Amino acid sequence: MNQTYKKKILLLTTGGTIASGPTNEGLAPVLNGDKLLSLLGPASNGYSITVRDILSLDSSNIQPEEWKLIARSTASAFSSQEGYDGVVITHGTDTMAYTASILSFMLRNPPIPVVITGSQLPIFHPLTDALENLRTAFAMAASGIRGVFVAFNRKIILGTRAVKVRTTGFDAFESVNSPCAAWIDGTGLRVNHDAIPLVFDPFSLEDHICGSVFLLKLTPGLDPGIFDMLGKMNYRGIVIEAFGLGGLHFIRRDLISKLQMTSELGITVVVCSQCLYERSDFSIYQAGQKALEQGVLQGFDMTTEAAVTKLMWALGKTEDLQEVRRLFSQSLFGEVVI
Amino acid sequence: MNQTYKKKILLLTTGGTIASGPTNEGLAPVLNGDKLLSLLGPASNGYSITVRDILSLDSSNIQPEEWKLIARSTASAFSSQEGYDGVVITHGTDTMAYTASILSFMLRNPPIPVVITGSQLPIFHPLTDALENLRTAFAMAASGIRGVFVAFNRKIILGTRAVKVRTTGFDAFESVNSPCAAWIDGTGLRVNHDAIPLVFDPFSLEDHICGSVFLLKLTPGLDPGIFDMLGKMNYRGIVIEAFGLGGLHFIRRDLISKLQMTSELGITVVVCSQCLYERSDFSIYQAGQKALEQGVLQGFDMTTEAAVTKLMWALGKTEDLQEVRRLFSQSLFGEVVI
Repeated sequence: MNQTYKKKILLLTTGGTIASGPTNEGLAPVLNGDKLLSLLGPASNGYSITVRDILSLDSSNIQPEEWKLIARSTASAFSSQEGYDGVVITHGTDTMAYTASILSFMLRNPPIPVVITGSQLPIFHPLTDALENLRTAFAMAASGIRGVFVAFNRKIILGTRAVKVRTTGFDAFESVNSPCAAWIDGTGLRVNHDAIPLVFDPFSLEDHICGSVFLLKLTPGLDPGIFDMLGKMNYRGIVIEAFGLGGLHFIRRDLISKLQMTSELGITVVVCSQCLYERSDFSIYQAGQKALEQGVLQGFDMTTEAAVTKLMWALGKTEDLQEVRRLFSQSLFGEVVI
Repeated sequence: MNQTYKKKILLLTTGGTIASGPTNEGLAPVLNGDKLLSLLGPASNGYSITVRDILSLDSSNIQPEEWKLIARSTASAFSSQEGYDGVVITHGTDTMAYTASILSFMLRNPPIPVVITGSQLPIFHPLTDALENLRTAFAMAASGIRGVFVAFNRKIILGTRAVKVRTTGFDAFESVNSPCAAWIDGTGLRVNHDAIPLVFDPFSLEDHICGSVFLLKLTPGLDPGIFDMLGKMNYRGIVIEAFGLGGLHFIRRDLISKLQMTSELGITVVVCSQCLYERSDFSIYQAGQKALEQGVLQGFDMTTEAAVTKLMWALGKTEDLQEVRRLFSQSLFGEVVI
């Protein structure tokens, strides 16, 4: 009998809407990975799938501690004697973009594809998008392409470029400021190799992070006193979603002096934009140039999710602010064009 | 000689990129309204335009004090013996969406169109979008349609629905969760009346606002202590950009209890989504339902810019939290579908 080799995929489940079923207290993530696979049906037959249920959480509760667990569980697949070809992680959509970004940094140079997916409707729902998303995720996981990706609505997005832009639509995630890494069409999985950074180096697990990073989205007239408060709360990093290209008010309420002072106190400040699309460039403002000279970093075209998680990761690696600056000045997995 | 009636438009200038020219310290908003009109050329000939230069600021520096000045300058046009048919306000793009939202609330039931515009390239630049945007703004200002609008890239957007989504692209503003109010095509100004709330009531200037509103965009693992800090800073309102439909973490770091406590202390809390598109719905979570029972408000499909400015406006009108709740439970100018 002709034995076809089936790609070996590790399926890690963490909960989320995809795994939710009705309970006495409303929908809750109660389905395990075996149940997900049974509902997926024949689409899973082409792979040899091993299931590990590692969490059962709504993704709003996925926090740095869970990131570390997911990273380690994924890394253990890399060194497993099973010889996995890829890893699929099911996850709620609410914080999926943050998890995908941080995993892209924690799992440096993964030897096999790591693909995160989920759904907007539970897998048991007659109109669910879970089946489509799982099929897409398995196809990417079997592709041999090294990296961390999000699979959603027939698209594959770099983990560092995914943003959840819709609360309920199936097209919930966009690849922001970068083309999709791949998509599904009548030819199967079409990979856009130009959009995927080549990974040559050996894998390293770099999962020590600093959770003390605050995201500050500006509003007109914001009191600069917030910086003092964040200093008192011992934040080590602040990511600012400034206006437009990187604007901050400085008349009457001088945010620019304040962020320079904050930077001088040893708190790493990154300026990016609250516009969803396109690059920020803090250097076009004269005041911005001065702040940059004094150590403020730029987010450029990074998503907010990538900027926040990259800063958590960089501050977790080192207390040397020059080294943080150096780590920030390079693209680790396609998250930024400097 | 046949005298054609020309619509009378008041042009208020506030600075911004549109009015920027080269100076010794780089680009700065130095052009006045007369200069803008002379650069606009014949397109302004169809109107009788009066210019008032009221500010000359980069819009990152437009704050509540400037909002009040702009609102009052606009309101004075309504009662002027000149009999203006419309008002055009030029403004930087960085905070234009915030200004457009707050003017929609401060200028209740404006008797004539109020249209805010600007540009991504200065008006003197050979490739500027300023001419197109001014032409569009004047056409809308002459339309007789009551309301506050943004004119950009041949589109007219309700002031409460505009969001700056691109840092440099000419298509910088989107009409979020609502169709465009009008657009320009080969037939001229095409008005989408279905998208524009009908205004019947008489005008009132309601420009007293409370600037003590903080915008909190969640990140995974955010320390709930921030609510205590905001309380100490005497914030009266907090708008939370939660995850997805309205998710907040509560394991280990209990944001949901904290926001209930904050609400009980008399700080008005509004939960909306950090997803750009579609509705939030905090009531789908059991924990969310409890918080709503205790007075937490919902942003539903409001933009963040509208939610923040509406809360500033509502808290400026009254200290009665029930009244704030009542004001929040209605749509003032198309900003929300309850």
